Amino acid sequence: MAENQQLAALVDACHWIGAKGWCPATGGNMSVRAGAGQCLVSESGKDKGALRERDFLPVDITTNRVLDPRTPSAETGLHTLIYRCLPAVGAILHTHSVNATVLSRVEPGASLLLSGYEMQKSLGGVASHLDQVTVPIFDNDQDIPALATRVAARHEIAPLRHGFLVRGHGLYCWGRDVLEARRHLEGLEFLFQCELQRRLLEAR
Amino acid sequence: MAENQQLAALVDACHWIGAKGWCPATGGNMSVRAGAGQCLVSESGKDKGALRERDFLPVDITTNRVLDPRTPSAETGLHTLIYRCLPAVGAILHTHSVNATVLSRVEPGASLLLSGYEMQKSLGGVASHLDQVTVPIFDNDQDIPALATRVAARHEIAPLRHGFLVRGHGLYCWGRDVLEARRHLEGLEFLFQCELQRRLLEAR
Amino acid sequence: MAENQQLAALVDACHWIGAKGWCPATGGNMSVRAGAGQCLVSESGKDKGALRERDFLPVDITTNRVLDPRTPSAETGLHTLIYRCLPAVGAILHTHSVNATVLSRVEPGASLLLSGYEMQKSLGGVASHLDQVTVPIFDNDQDIPALATRVAARHEIAPLRHGFLVRGHGLYCWGRDVLEARRHLEGLEFLFQCELQRRLLEAR
Amino acid sequence: MAENQQLAALVDACHWIGAKGWCPATGGNMSVRAGAGQCLVSESGKDKGALRERDFLPVDITTNRVLDPRTPSAETGLHTLIYRCLPAVGAILHTHSVNATVLSRVEPGASLLLSGYEMQKSLGGVASHLDQVTVPIFDNDQDIPALATRVAARHEIAPLRHGFLVRGHGLYCWGRDVLEARRHLEGLEFLFQCELQRRLLEAR
Repeated sequence: MAENQQLAALVDACHWIGAKGWCPATGGNMSVRAGAGQCLVSESGKDKGALRERDFLPVDITTNRVLDPRTPSAETGLHTLIYRCLPAVGAILHTHSVNATVLSRVEPGASLLLSGYEMQKSLGGVASHLDQVTVPIFDNDQDIPALATRVAARHEIAPLRHGFLVRGHGLYCWGRDVLEARRHLEGLEFLFQCELQRRLLEAR
Repeated sequence: MAENQQLAALVDACHWIGAKGWCPATGGNMSVRAGAGQCLVSESGKDKGALRERDFLPVDITTNRVLDPRTPSAETGLHTLIYRCLPAVGAILHTHSVNATVLSRVEPGASLLLSGYEMQKSLGGVASHLDQVTVPIFDNDQDIPALATRVAARHEIAPLRHGFLVRGHGLYCWGRDVLEARRHLEGLEFLFQCELQRRLLEAR
Repeated sequence: MAENQQLAALVDACHWIGAKGWCPATGGNMSVRAGAGQCLVSESGKDKGALRERDFLPVDITTNRVLDPRTPSAETGLHTLIYRCLPAVGAILHTHSVNATVLSRVEPGASLLLSGYEMQKSLGGVASHLDQVTVPIFDNDQDIPALATRVAARHEIAPLRHGFLVRGHGLYCWGRDVLEARRHLEGLEFLFQCELQRRLLEAR
Repeated sequence: MAENQQLAALVDACHWIGAKGWCPATGGNMSVRAGAGQCLVSESGKDKGALRERDFLPVDITTNRVLDPRTPSAETGLHTLIYRCLPAVGAILHTHSVNATVLSRVEPGASLLLSGYEMQKSLGGVASHLDQVTVPIFDNDQDIPALATRVAARHEIAPLRHGFLVRGHGLYCWGRDVLEARRHLEGLEFLFQCELQRRLLEAR
């Protein structure tokens, strides 16, 4: 079944993310869209590099209602928002890498603008290094509904595309399936590392 | 038995620390609290990535007396001090990472102050990126009793929380059990790496 | 058969490159020269760290005609150009490392000049750290025939030797066989990392 | 037999060095002291991460005569010099790390001076972070006998201790046996990485 295949692919992606060091100390959370208007979200407080299929909980995308006695990630409301805003999205990965954390702090603006990189083409719909890729940056907030409201408001003005950063916190990115979400994560993390190095060198 | 389980968990943590490169060249030392007012401290001079359960020696927490013919870590007096100061602590990890070594040298003050990082929440009792996390920094000393006296004096004024740095030397951190000590180590090392990168970039 | 051995060696090299992180997010492409004026080029869009022998497609070196229903890398025209310009070349590796991407952007000139490094001797025909190694840098272009024309024009004036950079994109390098191409890649990537670090430090 | 055990330990050390990335692209060379005034030196041009016991060739320490039809490392004359200068040395490791290469270039003086690091104590005979560790730096030379003469001349004035750097080239270090040489290598590489980071940060 496609849904089970996506969950298995997500568990594989979590192990790969753990090996990359992008979810230290139980940080991060992940999900896939499931049938019947639901998504499956990782349980709170687990080591993301050691997740198994049974560590994902069903959540209603419209109501945020958790259809399980366990507690999903505290940031579930951002996952359901993304599934509501972007009907084509099938999988969401939220990671806490050093590069995403630092770059979102040292960039004072409301967006990270990337251009001139061939690897921008790893992002769906980007065909040239001459395109400008805009990664929105939202100030961090422990009030997830308030943060979700700000994300939704910006999406109304400028639709979300591949992902966004939360300042000092990490990256949310996604794709139509786990494979594309994983390529977007790998491409964006590569671009963040390049951009940090470039800024250090060009500051000379 | 809980004590045996903690020792097994500590040996696992040592192998993970070795793979991370946080205890090069036999540096570092680790312990768990045991029954009867004792703790088990790693033997001196061993490769921390290859420790086995029999490489830990019983030491009396109150008297620092070593209950074994072998020699425990030269820094055993800091482990017993922490167990005396903080009765809830069950495990202590002392590592020598590049980031902890360098950050404790380039920060001239008596504390490293961290704020604005979501990952601060990996530390027990920290609920928001808006909190300020204070990691004390002590000047290094080859006289461990003298260093322990300075640590104890500061604890009287401002209680130790998750860990402290020794300048140019490394990090001591702990938790109520090995699992929490390991999460604190991973969280603090992540924050140190972010803070070093941030300082490099914001110096532009 | 020599050709099959080279393809097997190339598949090994691809796995090694994947483990190094030099081809993230399906970036990069590789080839070996085959018999009858052909080369075998990696299929488009595949994860380079997981390539198998059947993922390489025969292409005519003179005409760029693809002798297979599948689509080879979009940059096939650069591979065939190199095989036409340099008859001794038997294998080509094109990678997307962070260091190659960033260094080719921060260096504004048409070449990266390297000297003073012992490891320059890992490049065929370089006998001393006192030699100056010139790595051409070409501005990136989504029009591969146009880019190939610029590469060919420069080769007329100053023959290509071990490899060239495409700005913000990555490295092309090669050798008389896969073993030499792999040594050139490893040597050049080492030199790029040294050069980035040196520039950061000497900018103080 | 002790000699065989040392050779086996050296082969293990080579594999560990390969995994660390400290001998890329066939760089570096290693040896152990053997009986009858000989040492066993790694063969020229081999991948140091894949060496086997049979890849080491006997060389007479006094005369530099190679007792084998194969060709040992081009830098054999530095190995035999060290065995002549320091009779207690049993094993020598010469590596090409990025940090050793870059630090020896950005430090303009004839020595790298290290102090304030606890990890200095990983070096035999260093008891305190307050000690100053002097790592000599020699300008690189393709004429190995000439380089050896300069090393010997400096040793007459200030005896060699744990290792020395060759500028833009790499590190030679040693110990009374392979175990100590390996601890010195790991300790020095750690110190080089710290020192590079410290210099970047303190340049702000």
